Amino acid sequence: MYRTHTCGELNISNVGQEVTLCGWLQRSRDLGGMTFIDLRDRYGITQLAFNMETNAPLCEQARKLGREYVLQVKGTVIERSSKNTKIPTGEIEINVKDLNILNAAKTPPFTIEDVSDGGDDLRMKYRYLDIRRNPVRRNLELRHRMAMLVRNYLSDRDFLEIETPMLIKSTPEGARDFVVPSRMNPGEFYALPQSPQQYKQLLMVAGMDRYFQIVRCFRDEDLRADRQPEFTQIDCEMSFVEQEDVLQMFEGLAKHLFKEVKGLEFGQFPRITWHDAMRLYGSDKPDIRFGMQFVEINDVAKGKGFGLFDNAELVVGICAEGCAEYTRKQLDALTDFVKRPQVGAGGMVYIKYNSDGSFKSSVDKFYTQDDQKAIADKFGAKPGDLMLILCGPAMKTRVQLCALRLEMGNQLGLRNPEVFAPLWVVDFPLLEWDEETQRYYAMHHPFTAPKPEDEPLLDDPNRWGDIRANAYDIVMNGVEVGGGSIRIHDRTLQNKMFHTLGFTDEQAAAQFGFLMDAFTYGAPPHAGLAFGFDRLCSLFGGADSIRDFIAFPKNNSGRDVMSQSPSPISDAQLEELCIKVDVKSDN
Amino acid sequence: MYRTHTCGELNISNVGQEVTLCGWLQRSRDLGGMTFIDLRDRYGITQLAFNMETNAPLCEQARKLGREYVLQVKGTVIERSSKNTKIPTGEIEINVKDLNILNAAKTPPFTIEDVSDGGDDLRMKYRYLDIRRNPVRRNLELRHRMAMLVRNYLSDRDFLEIETPMLIKSTPEGARDFVVPSRMNPGEFYALPQSPQQYKQLLMVAGMDRYFQIVRCFRDEDLRADRQPEFTQIDCEMSFVEQEDVLQMFEGLAKHLFKEVKGLEFGQFPRITWHDAMRLYGSDKPDIRFGMQFVEINDVAKGKGFGLFDNAELVVGICAEGCAEYTRKQLDALTDFVKRPQVGAGGMVYIKYNSDGSFKSSVDKFYTQDDQKAIADKFGAKPGDLMLILCGPAMKTRVQLCALRLEMGNQLGLRNPEVFAPLWVVDFPLLEWDEETQRYYAMHHPFTAPKPEDEPLLDDPNRWGDIRANAYDIVMNGVEVGGGSIRIHDRTLQNKMFHTLGFTDEQAAAQFGFLMDAFTYGAPPHAGLAFGFDRLCSLFGGADSIRDFIAFPKNNSGRDVMSQSPSPISDAQLEELCIKVDVKSDN
Repeated sequence: MYRTHTCGELNISNVGQEVTLCGWLQRSRDLGGMTFIDLRDRYGITQLAFNMETNAPLCEQARKLGREYVLQVKGTVIERSSKNTKIPTGEIEINVKDLNILNAAKTPPFTIEDVSDGGDDLRMKYRYLDIRRNPVRRNLELRHRMAMLVRNYLSDRDFLEIETPMLIKSTPEGARDFVVPSRMNPGEFYALPQSPQQYKQLLMVAGMDRYFQIVRCFRDEDLRADRQPEFTQIDCEMSFVEQEDVLQMFEGLAKHLFKEVKGLEFGQFPRITWHDAMRLYGSDKPDIRFGMQFVEINDVAKGKGFGLFDNAELVVGICAEGCAEYTRKQLDALTDFVKRPQVGAGGMVYIKYNSDGSFKSSVDKFYTQDDQKAIADKFGAKPGDLMLILCGPAMKTRVQLCALRLEMGNQLGLRNPEVFAPLWVVDFPLLEWDEETQRYYAMHHPFTAPKPEDEPLLDDPNRWGDIRANAYDIVMNGVEVGGGSIRIHDRTLQNKMFHTLGFTDEQAAAQFGFLMDAFTYGAPPHAGLAFGFDRLCSLFGGADSIRDFIAFPKNNSGRDVMSQSPSPISDAQLEELCIKVDVKSDN
Repeated sequence: MYRTHTCGELNISNVGQEVTLCGWLQRSRDLGGMTFIDLRDRYGITQLAFNMETNAPLCEQARKLGREYVLQVKGTVIERSSKNTKIPTGEIEINVKDLNILNAAKTPPFTIEDVSDGGDDLRMKYRYLDIRRNPVRRNLELRHRMAMLVRNYLSDRDFLEIETPMLIKSTPEGARDFVVPSRMNPGEFYALPQSPQQYKQLLMVAGMDRYFQIVRCFRDEDLRADRQPEFTQIDCEMSFVEQEDVLQMFEGLAKHLFKEVKGLEFGQFPRITWHDAMRLYGSDKPDIRFGMQFVEINDVAKGKGFGLFDNAELVVGICAEGCAEYTRKQLDALTDFVKRPQVGAGGMVYIKYNSDGSFKSSVDKFYTQDDQKAIADKFGAKPGDLMLILCGPAMKTRVQLCALRLEMGNQLGLRNPEVFAPLWVVDFPLLEWDEETQRYYAMHHPFTAPKPEDEPLLDDPNRWGDIRANAYDIVMNGVEVGGGSIRIHDRTLQNKMFHTLGFTDEQAAAQFGFLMDAFTYGAPPHAGLAFGFDRLCSLFGGADSIRDFIAFPKNNSGRDVMSQSPSPISDAQLEELCIKVDVKSDN
């Protein structure tokens, strides 16, 4: 037993006790007659007192200790003369009698404080020091707690956590697989799972009824900011359910998390169709913490001689309440914002509804005061409001306006990370056209069922884009935290779907044959959903980035800068695996 | 809502209710006027009744349904005339009014019964059907339950489950790594973790204090029976602990599992040193469900002119109580058993202590009745007992005798899978000599601490084999279910250890540099343990094989015969990864 207590548990009721504590030296203060050390562990901080008068050698020794030294101390709990009410241990300190240096420490390359002076690269290289910082530690504690809550919630509802394989078959459909050469099967490869999709469907065929797994998944994608090559899903599947059953079940899970972690209670989550989400927010993951819904104004904006609007497929805008006083500079900045390549708009039209009832706009020469009043009425604008309008091809313009809406939300402080606005987005399109390869892809995945009423459209290639899927996403604060679908459980329909996606029978059989075979032996109707667990944690933790909710993340090149991986392997390893490295010189 | 109830929950109290059930057709019985169908889901079986008199068309339809059809039925719960007391739903049946075929099913390739006619290969190919069988389903349910018990137990004791990376750095030490080519870092590879060893130690340096993870691990070994290339560990690590703390904590966990799963209560688990385990059982994982400890008889066996014994380093045997009546045939079979190449003994000597007090042995011409009495006394044998004796080089002979002891345990019914005998094996050797490479290897791993009193022996290469480690295994019924050690937290000692293992400073730095660096920034004393979770589940499930406790296992060639993985990947994939397949024709 190295210690009798942690550094977080002693308080006034322990005064007089002899205790042994272990921890790291957070800081020390030399006040001449006394030296104080803050001893830190995962559980808290306890103040150690060394008295020059009563034990000079020990006090001298204590003064020489550096930051992050690992210490074991024995002493008596005493009441502090000057109390710290901010921490649970703030009323006491330890009158130290024995001091044992368990390990020395070099001076850390950045301070182990809530706000550190370490940059991102340094923090990642010394992640084991970064995790000592309260904010990172708390994130990992939150993640543990959320995983426990999820597991117990689902287990209490008859879900079984079933581990599916990590070494699986590579399937070209979808994102790029990470592959693993098989030494025992030369020339052959496993893939790491992008998700346990096929296995969880097989478990439904196997009669397991309710499955879940908090599971690592892998995608070899070019990493955008805040994407990780390995990530964690809460993966779920249920049999004999309809969409409503799935939505209720996982809305229940989300509410449970909100209540337990955040103390928040919610009524039924709102729902919006994908079509409406695109029309009203320009996004399939709208942030509904604030309104500012899109208003389409073709009818009142066109035919007044303003060519840009007249020639546009869609004229659409948002109304920013109380922003009519925006300065020229602010408006120019917004125009610059929408013209950035990441947004890509050609420009922005504004109309100020002044508090005196008059209008001032960037298109005054095309639109009379009455014309602008008609537009303002369309927006439901009041004096003091500001309308911001974009135009162009419908879908493209909506996406641009979405960026502007979120920017306005930020500027107006409408996106508080401690406010939560969950939302179901339903009725996603089944298929998505890809310009580059000139074919349709499954928007969700090839096992997603079309809405029964839209099934006949599969026979008409011209209508493929109109087919709606029984697919749904759960969105919070503009972030997609989960998604799923009703699966196809009928082999005939599944074959039709493969044909729609351009698979030959042979290709479908080679890739998904075992799943298709399984479907002939009595597949139940089934459906599922997966949450992105890293993202869910970061959302609950009030942070934008998922990186600090992952103990050892990788950087944007997929590298772990701490262990310097990936790295070359030996020729002997390559030879055993029957592969050769073949790096082109222009790589 | 496809159903109002599962097939396992209706009983006499539900009589009169209108219900909707879904499930698979387990069997149907056509009794002329009535047809009965057993409808099965994960939760149980409910009998469906179709009446030819009251609804002939429906009854006719029911008669045509094949095994494993997926059905939805509506009807009324009625009391059965002939009750089945063996199942919870046995007092009722459903008077069916509506029948809806949710999916047809081909006849399964083997019967979905507790004892199936499917061979191993067929069961693995159609694993999704195999899992429908009660024994396999129950195994997966047990596994889920055990994982939940473990997580809640550890979480309640301040352990945090922290996910460590799956894409890590390859380290040649230990077993062979599976590797993953990095597309973004051409010519470089990740490895899949053999265990999260280094990361969990880093988490201790990071101050996380108590860590656990139920985690997938990977080893590219030639697969012996019942080894899987991917397997699951309950991986644990603690800071500021001594060996006793670790043993108490995880003994507590094991007791919790025994109590919750098996209803068994245990006192303190016995402990044995590695040295004694080898001496008394010839194994570092003794099955102590039965005694039959080894007795070394050099002093009474040598010097009687029996050359084999006289020239042997060790003469050692076991006493099988009450087996003096073994026939010639039985004894020959035992001799054949020890002479099998898997055991490798040259022969076996037996001495029968007949019930009349006389002796009969295979070496009567060398040993008088008095000599044999002296041997019998050494064994503590009584009239009616049988002594079985081997001889040869000490360690080799012990291992051979271990096999014989276990075989006798089997023959005498002393190895009941429902009896549990846990045991700690402690004080493992730190280092293990490898004849082939003529060097020492770490028996546990290179981070295991020597016992402090044995540390000085590190300076004397001649004594390296004598150094004991602070390492321990938890053994149940002759199976190693877990093991761990106190870690080295001092960088100087760790460097010395690396040198002992033949690493140059450069090699150590290249492989473990980041861990060694971490140790300079304040590493706490720490220790850990990992349970083999697949094995633990199979033990609690009373089975020898781990395969049926893994939803989708691989065969002995590392293949998943269901999905036919591993498999070749496309040239495009290879090119992107900058690797070439290089299979020699003699492979």
